[in-house]
Amino acid sequence: MIYFDNSATTKPYKEVLHTFTKVNEQLFANPSSIHSFGGRVEKLMQQAREQVASLLHVQGKEIIFTSGGTESNNLAIKGAALRYRNRGKHLITLKIEHPSVLNAFKQLEEFGYSVTYLDVDESGKVDPAMVEKEIREDTILISIMHVNNEVGTIQPIMKISEILQRYPKVIFHVDHVQGCGKVPLEMKHSRIDLCTISAHKVHGLKGTGLLYKRDGINLSPILTGGEQEANIRSGTENVGGIASFAKALRLHFSKTENDIKKMFDIQRYLRDELEKLDEVIIHTPKADQAPHIINFSVKHFKAEVLVHALDKHEIFVSTTSACSSKQSKPSRTLLSMGVPLEIAESSLRISLSFENTLEEAKQFLQVFNTEINSLMKTMRRSK
Amino acid sequence: MIYFDNSATTKPYKEVLHTFTKVNEQLFANPSSIHSFGGRVEKLMQQAREQVASLLHVQGKEIIFTSGGTESNNLAIKGAALRYRNRGKHLITLKIEHPSVLNAFKQLEEFGYSVTYLDVDESGKVDPAMVEKEIREDTILISIMHVNNEVGTIQPIMKISEILQRYPKVIFHVDHVQGCGKVPLEMKHSRIDLCTISAHKVHGLKGTGLLYKRDGINLSPILTGGEQEANIRSGTENVGGIASFAKALRLHFSKTENDIKKMFDIQRYLRDELEKLDEVIIHTPKADQAPHIINFSVKHFKAEVLVHALDKHEIFVSTTSACSSKQSKPSRTLLSMGVPLEIAESSLRISLSFENTLEEAKQFLQVFNTEINSLMKTMRRSK
Repeated sequence: MIYFDNSATTKPYKEVLHTFTKVNEQLFANPSSIHSFGGRVEKLMQQAREQVASLLHVQGKEIIFTSGGTESNNLAIKGAALRYRNRGKHLITLKIEHPSVLNAFKQLEEFGYSVTYLDVDESGKVDPAMVEKEIREDTILISIMHVNNEVGTIQPIMKISEILQRYPKVIFHVDHVQGCGKVPLEMKHSRIDLCTISAHKVHGLKGTGLLYKRDGINLSPILTGGEQEANIRSGTENVGGIASFAKALRLHFSKTENDIKKMFDIQRYLRDELEKLDEVIIHTPKADQAPHIINFSVKHFKAEVLVHALDKHEIFVSTTSACSSKQSKPSRTLLSMGVPLEIAESSLRISLSFENTLEEAKQFLQVFNTEINSLMKTMRRSK
Repeated sequence: MIYFDNSATTKPYKEVLHTFTKVNEQLFANPSSIHSFGGRVEKLMQQAREQVASLLHVQGKEIIFTSGGTESNNLAIKGAALRYRNRGKHLITLKIEHPSVLNAFKQLEEFGYSVTYLDVDESGKVDPAMVEKEIREDTILISIMHVNNEVGTIQPIMKISEILQRYPKVIFHVDHVQGCGKVPLEMKHSRIDLCTISAHKVHGLKGTGLLYKRDGINLSPILTGGEQEANIRSGTENVGGIASFAKALRLHFSKTENDIKKMFDIQRYLRDELEKLDEVIIHTPKADQAPHIINFSVKHFKAEVLVHALDKHEIFVSTTSACSSKQSKPSRTLLSMGVPLEIAESSLRISLSFENTLEEAKQFLQVFNTEINSLMKTMRRSK
């Protein structure tokens, strides 16, 4: 199997599953229970929190564990919008955000909020000056993704962060799900107030995520109840998931610059080889792009056809993001970048993990070329 | 170890952890991915959904998987309140509901909803006539727990259900977390529209729950995004958690009437023996109570002192519910039942699983008696 769909989800590390099992076998008590068994579980969870915080260079109390990236994005956006509604009801985001961000804003519009959706340029990037231009007296929240999940463009978070130093009242949320561990992002020395990370995108487990919430920022909870996670996120904590999230992050963050360079090498190799084909148009920009994504279209082919052709060889790539793929909508990101509809409908995404090798990229290209040729022959015959 | 805190959480079944591990090792793809690997995962998830539905005698499409009981309760209550807000803004619930229900209502009050919190009698039960009395033209939702998590009282769900046949527009939600698998509840042949179940209370995994949503009932999602779970609950599905939830429910539901009778026997034994002690007042009612909970106070002792005394012997019981225990608030349920504050502060909860034995109950009583006597001597000396 060649698994090239790591932006959809990653294979959990062995150690991650081991931690999960051990916690659930031995430390299964409820961390809120006041007996010593509960206390041991609570301690383990706080250790995981401190470990995660230390990897992200933030404080333990700034980490809120959630059920995943979608919940973290929803909590950040709706939580801030509800909490600060008396200050204003204007919000800013990008047209190319992940659905869990975009649909959170759509829902807020139903409740009287006003949202500015910013355009991106042909490389998929927002102009920081455009962000500033849209800030109004009643702007309470700006949410900008770090790395785009479909094409891999890195947004100018640090430049926006500098601009926002002049707007201390505006809350700044960053969806860091795709960047985490592959594209550095410093929360502490920036204006980032809220930041989303998902465990299953870094070889942790589905059902676990976190929201970094800068000390001093308040949020209205969206899940209320037993007041866990400093009353920002109620519900019995998924302690096994949390402990194994800490493990996954530690392993993921232990990757060196050299590991990232190797990933860039595979990406460059794929780009160079794909560019040789007349039918291929590459969408992932050559600069300010994450190392793990390469998005391209094959003219005259529906993306689904190519996915299924590769499928037969146990090679797994995706069309757009997994979250949108079943709806068979063309990529919103590509359309926003000015890619024509027909080309956008032919787009494929390869997304790498640190486990992928150059050898796999070579195998992929071999199969890919053969399949394209064979499909072209069929097409010619049927004309 | 004698683990008597099964209402806080249960030990995951071996088979549950096995399923979780297997899924995460072999079927780790994103079920939304359109390649065949994603398809296999999607299929597994749908099988789990059908299995769960069949155990609950409902349809697969009526099951929404969530991150747990708290999320299910929040989704049911806030989702119905938001969705049907144009029909009315009046809601009814009990004073003794779980915090994840009560605090959902408290938050809705902030947003202009009006909530009636019903009293219970000295056995912890609501009078169905009282429920009907409070229904108004603008009542859109009634939320009543099945089994109280602190004392084990079973609410008259079927009687309320019959009354609600005359009020077809009122949505009826039942928090079934404590009853599931121990006290039968038929969703299909009742007026129940929404029903919450948590995996980790039935030897499944923390971080997994479900909401039964009767076909035809609509909810506003509280987690928006990639439109998973029929667009009611977005976020990459915790497939391992879901598959192992199906496994846990199947094992839990395979318990026979005889297993439940055995649990009642242990409960009765504990009650009979505890009643022999002058200092003990039993709060769990003798009729219409679940088999697994026995709640009692020991006069003159703070509950924490007793929890810690038992702790030394690796016997784990709780004070109030785990979710409230750290806040050291006296039990809202006991106060609502008319128990005086001082007695409520001395209350302990034993909560059984099918794994517990009469032998453990005997051991507990032996230790309990010794500890009480020893603590009484200390108290007398210090006077």
